[in-house]
Formats: sequence, C-alpha cells, structure tokens
Amino acid sequence: MDVSSSNLTRRGLLGGLAGGALLASGALSAPVRAAAAGARDPLPGTADVVVVGGGISGLVTARELARAGRSVVLLDARDRVGGRVLNHTLANGSVIEAGGAFVGPTQDRILALAAELGVPTFKEHVAGDNIFAANGRTMRYQGTVPPDLAIVVDAFVLQLRIDWMAGQVPVDAPWSAPHAAEWDAVTVQEWVRANTFNRDTLTLLQSFLQPTYGSDGEDVSLLFFLWTIACSGNETTPGSFERASSTANGAQDSRFVGGSQLVPLALARQLGAVVQTEAAVRRIAQDDTGVTVTSDRGQVRAGRVVVAAPPPLVTAIDWDPLLPPLRQQLLTRLHLGTLMKVDAVYPSPFWRAAGLSGSGIATSGAVRTCFDNSPADAAVGVLLAFVGGSTWREYGNLPLAQRRTAVLQGFAQLVGPQALDPVEYVEQDWTRERWTKGSPVASAGTGTTTAYGAQIRVPFGRVHWAGTETATYWAGFMDGAVRAGERAAAEVLAQR
Amino acid sequence: MDVSSSNLTRRGLLGGLAGGALLASGALSAPVRAAAAGARDPLPGTADVVVVGGGISGLVTARELARAGRSVVLLDARDRVGGRVLNHTLANGSVIEAGGAFVGPTQDRILALAAELGVPTFKEHVAGDNIFAANGRTMRYQGTVPPDLAIVVDAFVLQLRIDWMAGQVPVDAPWSAPHAAEWDAVTVQEWVRANTFNRDTLTLLQSFLQPTYGSDGEDVSLLFFLWTIACSGNETTPGSFERASSTANGAQDSRFVGGSQLVPLALARQLGAVVQTEAAVRRIAQDDTGVTVTSDRGQVRAGRVVVAAPPPLVTAIDWDPLLPPLRQQLLTRLHLGTLMKVDAVYPSPFWRAAGLSGSGIATSGAVRTCFDNSPADAAVGVLLAFVGGSTWREYGNLPLAQRRTAVLQGFAQLVGPQALDPVEYVEQDWTRERWTKGSPVASAGTGTTTAYGAQIRVPFGRVHWAGTETATYWAGFMDGAVRAGERAAAEVLAQR
Repeated sequence: MDVSSSNLTRRGLLGGLAGGALLASGALSAPVRAAAAGARDPLPGTADVVVVGGGISGLVTARELARAGRSVVLLDARDRVGGRVLNHTLANGSVIEAGGAFVGPTQDRILALAAELGVPTFKEHVAGDNIFAANGRTMRYQGTVPPDLAIVVDAFVLQLRIDWMAGQVPVDAPWSAPHAAEWDAVTVQEWVRANTFNRDTLTLLQSFLQPTYGSDGEDVSLLFFLWTIACSGNETTPGSFERASSTANGAQDSRFVGGSQLVPLALARQLGAVVQTEAAVRRIAQDDTGVTVTSDRGQVRAGRVVVAAPPPLVTAIDWDPLLPPLRQQLLTRLHLGTLMKVDAVYPSPFWRAAGLSGSGIATSGAVRTCFDNSPADAAVGVLLAFVGGSTWREYGNLPLAQRRTAVLQGFAQLVGPQALDPVEYVEQDWTRERWTKGSPVASAGTGTTTAYGAQIRVPFGRVHWAGTETATYWAGFMDGAVRAGERAAAEVLAQR
Repeated sequence: MDVSSSNLTRRGLLGGLAGGALLASGALSAPVRAAAAGARDPLPGTADVVVVGGGISGLVTARELARAGRSVVLLDARDRVGGRVLNHTLANGSVIEAGGAFVGPTQDRILALAAELGVPTFKEHVAGDNIFAANGRTMRYQGTVPPDLAIVVDAFVLQLRIDWMAGQVPVDAPWSAPHAAEWDAVTVQEWVRANTFNRDTLTLLQSFLQPTYGSDGEDVSLLFFLWTIACSGNETTPGSFERASSTANGAQDSRFVGGSQLVPLALARQLGAVVQTEAAVRRIAQDDTGVTVTSDRGQVRAGRVVVAAPPPLVTAIDWDPLLPPLRQQLLTRLHLGTLMKVDAVYPSPFWRAAGLSGSGIATSGAVRTCFDNSPADAAVGVLLAFVGGSTWREYGNLPLAQRRTAVLQGFAQLVGPQALDPVEYVEQDWTRERWTKGSPVASAGTGTTTAYGAQIRVPFGRVHWAGTETATYWAGFMDGAVRAGERAAAEVLAQR
C-alpha cells in the first residue's frame, strides 16, 4: 500500500506547536485553542499507523511505534490530550486532578513512564484517623475497613473469600476461570447478599464499587469484579482486595506532583505533530490494502489502525465492514457508569491538625467516599468526593447549588463543619463528557465476560485494540492504559 | 420556528414513487434501487416533524402525524422500509419472513392495523405432535411444555411462580414493582437455578429466551424478564408465560398472508414521499427554536423529532446537546443480542403427513427451537429455526456450509431425515445487520430497569421516543411497535 515512511519530525513547526508546545501548557485558554486550531496544518494523507485516541494508552502506542520508525498520526476528538486524565488548575495556581489521579505499588508501567518523563510522585496523605459515618453516628478508624461491629466479621470473611476467588481468575482470560459460568451469572449484589449477615456490608462495598465503576453491585457481574481484583497486581504479585481498595500501599498510594495529566502532556510534547486534536474519528473503512480513517479534520490512509478509545465511542464510529458481531456485543456491554469527581478547596488542610486523614466513608448522603486531594505542597487543602452510581443518580441531576450544599454537608459529616465553607468548589462530571460518555472505568454486567470477553484483544483485520479496558493488570487505571499501549504497539510491530 | 405546513402530497411524483409504489414491490432489484435513489428529489429543508426510522413504529408515528395535518419527513438508513420486519421471496415465489413474523391474541394494535391495511392473517400450523429432543432421545408432546418427567414438576411450579411474580410488575413502570430492586439484582439464570431441582429446566427456558432476546439466562435481569411476561397481554388481559411462549392462542398464534412486511410496505405506500430511504441520520442538534437532523441525504429542520430506531443506532448518532446521561445509560444497557433466523425449504411440509406439527425443542445442537414456517397455501414446506444467544455464538461464526449441515441435522433430529435435503436454505442474521446491530428484541441485564428504566419514554427537549422498546404491551414485538408509534404521535400532537 501507499504509505509514506517519514518520521516523527516531518510535520511543520505549527503542527509541532499545536501537538506539543501549546498543549504542554496544560490548560489552554479558549482563544489560544482557537488560534492553534486555525493555524493547524492539514492532516497528512497517509501514515503507517493511525492511532485513534490521545489518552495515555494511545499516546504510549504512538510513541512506541514512532520510536520503531513507523510514521504515525494520532487523532483525538478533544482539543487536548489525556482523555480520562485531566488536570485542573485552582484559583491559587495549584493543580489537582479531575480524572485519573492515583497510582500505587505494582503499577509498574505508569510509574516507570512517569519517572522517565520526569513527573515525580508523592504519597497520598494518610496520617491521622479515617472517619466512618453510618446511621447518624461517626467513628474514627485506621486502614481500609471501619471496625463497625455490625459488619466487621462479614467484611473480614468477605475479603478472604474475594481474594481466594480472585486468585482463581486468570488476568488474561477471566472467562476460563474454573467457576467462570457460575460467577458470571451472579451480580456482586446478589452474591454479597447471599454471603453476609448484615445488609450494611454491601453498603460498605459500594464505597469501592461506586468510585471504581460509577456503578453499584447490581450492575456488575461477580466474575468481572473478581477479575478487577485479580488485575490489581503485577506479574509477580497477585492482586488483592486490599491492594485494590487501600490508600497506603494500595491503589490510592500516591499521586503525581503537578497532576497526572503531566504524563500525557509530556508524551504529546515528545510526539510533536504526530498528535492531532479536534479530529473526531467518524468512520473507519478497511480493505485488502489498508485502512481509511475519516475524521472531522479529513482522511488519513494507513496500513494499520490502533483504537484506544472508550467503548461507547468505538461503537459510535461508522465501521466498514461492521465490527465483528462478538466485538460489537462486547463493546456495547462494557458499560461506563455515572460518576463525577467533586473537589472542595480550603485555605489549608484543616482536618490534619484535628488528627484526621481526610479519608472517610459514609453510608448515606452525597459523599460516600472522601479523600484528601491537597496538592503535594499543601498550599491549599482539598477534599475529594466520588459521586458515583446510584449516588450520582440521586445528586447528579440536581441544580448545582443544591448538589454543592449536599456535597459540602457530606464533607462536614466526615471532617467537621469547617468543610461547609470552601474557597472553591470544582466538579468534573464524566457522565456528561461528550468524548468519554460515562465514568472512566468500564464494568461488565453478568454474562458478558464468559460470552464475549475473549474478544477483548483480538485484532479486527488491520485494526488493533489499545485502551485500558484491554489490559491484563490494572485494567481501568492509568497503569493498564500504559500496558495496553505497549502491548498494542508490539502487536503492530510484529506484523510484517 | 420556520417550518412549512404542507401536507402529505406536496412532494413530487418521483419522490412518491421512491417512497411508495416502488417500495411496495417488496424486494427491489439492485438496479431498480439505484434508479430510485438516483431519481430522488432532494430532501425537503423543513418539516413540522422528522421521524427517524422506517420500521412499523416510525411509519405509524408518521401516519398519525400526517393524518393530523402535520408535515412529516421520515428518514430511514436502509433502502427499504420495515426495519426488523422483512419479507423474503423463495425460489417458487412464496414469501416467508426473515424478521418479525408472528402475531397473536391481545396484540390488538398490529391486528387492527393489518386488518385496516388489508393484510389478512392465517393460523400457524399446530396440528400434530411437537417433538422434544434431549439427551439423545426424542418424545412427542402437545402444548408448550414437554412432559419430560425430569423437568415437568419444575416447569409447572416455575410457570406458576413466573406468572405470579409478573402479575406484580406494572407494565408501564416495572421499576416500581414491590420487589423491583431484589428482582433486578438477580439474573434469570441464577433465579431459575435457585428455584428448580433439575438443571435441564433452565435449558428448556433457553428455548424461550434465545429466540426472544438473542440472549441467555445469565444476560437477562429477572425483573426485565418478568416485565416481558407482564407485557404479553393487553389492557384487559394480563400477560402470562403461557401467552408469551405458546403457539396456538399465544405469541406465535398466527402469521400474515404474504408476509409481515406487507404492513410497513402498505404504510409507506400511504405515506408516499414522506418516506425517504438511504438517509442514515448522523446528527441531531436541537436549540430553542427547533431541531436540525443531518442525514446522508442532507439536513431537515423541524419543530419536533420522533426517534424510532433500535438503541445501538440511537447512541451512535452525534447528539447536540448530548443525550441526557440517564438516557445514554439506559440505551447502552438495552442490549440487542445475537440471533439469526434460518429457514429450510422443502417441496411440501412432509412432517404434517407424519403427524408432526413441525414445532419442536432440542436441548443441544444448532436448532433449539423449530417452527413450521410454510406459507399460508403450503405451496412449499418451510422449517424455521431461531439460532440465538449462546447457540449463535456456537454456530454463527462457522463457515456457511458447516452451519447449514448443523442446522439441517437439527431439523432432522426433530422431524426426520427428510429434513437433510432441502430445496432451499435461507439465513437472515440480524447480528450482522448494519442498521439493526443485533437481535430484534432488546433485553436488559441486572440493575438497568430500576436505575434507568423510568427514562424510557421521557422526551428529550423536542425529541420524542417511539420504537417497540418504548411500548407497555408487547414491547419488542410488532404490536409494541404500533402502540409506541401511536403513543409518540399523540405526545407530539399534544404539544402546542
């Protein structure tokens, strides 16, 4: 086929600016964005590989391919890179994350990438007590599980069972687990109900499910949940519920100084004019000699395509030929739920002086899960709530003022009345993001993994699949995005 | 807003031919289709209402609106009308259905419509014995449930329980059933497993689930299934499993002489130039004064839009503003499964002479559910199999010759070795239909109905919802399509 074999730097200066230097500023003002778009070169007509999606996974894919000498064009629909990873600059200039933020041990690939790119991490603040609020009372605790007598036995046994069962789920083939059919016919909710004495135990588990999936226990297959737990490890350390749910030494162990979006921004800067934004892909047509990708900024003809976009966006593309039926089924059944991240900003992290960590769990209200989201230098104090699943449905459609009040009351319930009076209040609702269409981490209901799961990484002719959903460790996380990008690039490079 | 108020007949002769007379021929040859497309008028720039989707539901909507004096443009992506209802002409000239086909008592609206349009019905052939094939042996039986001693008690009790529970599910608000949360957290599979002694009972129930939903018991929420049963009735006769699953006096009681697509074809003929085919809708943008619908054949500006398309097609449209989050969630969680209809044609319905009905159920192989699909005059004999859900996954991707052999062996197991030698073999795989994207009847997994179900008929600004999925009786069926179209049209007409 007719594709050029030029390298990373063949595009002109303006393209380079648009893809790299300008984007690296993180938050472009609207006029700057417009100028960049207006000044942009046309898309190159051909490339060895087109990568669809400029989140971490697509950027890693593009970089690996470019490093191997392939000509690459990366198309993203947004006017920025990072996808579900997004920095937000506060009034005082501090940066917090509005999307994927936390990293932790065994997340080797994102940590290695960030280190290479010069983006340091810092430990999430954990000193002090956590707060558990239930049934109108609060208790202080340390660690992951509140020592509520009504649920502690349930929770202890449940955690043992979850880890034991997750240990039987192969991370690269959960559909082949010995009890896959049985576990995939049951929801997390039904399984917890049948295996606990106290209904509140499920409420506690929602504090994991809602922030993770933007969904509740009745939405998620037990097998898929066990796979998520199995995935929260690496090649030498098996996943565990403790790892998946904990702050210190767990999935929320650390954050990036300056915000996680520095990682995709640095990748984009390296890639220069490879990265083309505001180029929503509308159609992907392949034939015997190549693939034609049609975007809002024109067409690119390529030898291979790597798609690194969330499932609801992939199924909205006009595919010719159609996606294979089993992949179509799989993608439509990987659900992005309902989730917003809400941050309240205070002059300082006042809760720390009161001996509180800023972490907490509540069984009611708008704030079910709370973290200290202050920047590394604690120049301001920030509390973070995940409002997900049924909690999103309760609050997500309220007028902003009402929701703000409910969230601040939720924070106050956990760290005291000072929380009612923030200097800044920030919402990022992934449910309403045109180019994500739901909570950042996909989940599957019953029947999906066993019937369609095996399709997840199967190439479709000249089209390969990246994106954190296709990872075998930390799927749904930034680490999974890196791993998926590396795997997809290797797959393409292995083609003649 | 600026919409014209012209009537049904304002478009020119060629448009009328394309929308009516030509389509009425049923199966257009490729050259005829091309000529029709080439000769077509441009789309009108404005209309009172644009209807998206030319299945029965959209056509009924358009007709009701046009009758009330509204100017209407109906856009369909295909080169034909009928959507999931499609005739197929056999070599001898007989017509069978490749999509929705059966009608029965309480399906009042489709029966009234067909009668008005002059499309008569005839009774599905039921004389003779049905065959049940399980574990290498076959038995003859009459009625719906095979008298297999291993399952008959289970099946009897299960049916009583299903009807009793379905009786508690309001057809227009299943999410408000007394036990909605509990029933929506459990799959049909898990519930049957927990409430039966013999595993084969579930296998038997698959013979209902696979043809209906193109899905299996682990894919479908118990609450959604019970709603389907509740819906299999009308305003005066409650639904029942017997009604939903039976041939005589049930959902498969009758068929249309000349094929069910005669109904949408007759509607399209009445509507004339209102109906515009090969006009896939790509974008729907609404503002304070109207809605702009962008199709492959240009834009139409309207005061209101009624969308009557399957859920996976609706979410693939570029919506501006975005679909409300709860509707986006609902539509992505209404799954069209995997299903093909397969017909084998013989010189005559030879099984009838052997005292067989041609109906049967098997617990293994490619043919799990079989019907006599011979035309009204029995000019040829036709056997019909639904290959759905996990059975589709087993056979749907095989080479045609292998699948053909498996299907014919399946027929032979039920009606004898003569079935191995058909004169014609016809497949219609809805799983691979670009403009359906799955089995004709949607189903919902756990958690969907309670969380998102209430959105099903809620208008989105100037956009209203038709389509059989929005019906409150016989949702998923042709009758539901008519009911939904009538309801949506009334909704639009009730606007000032």
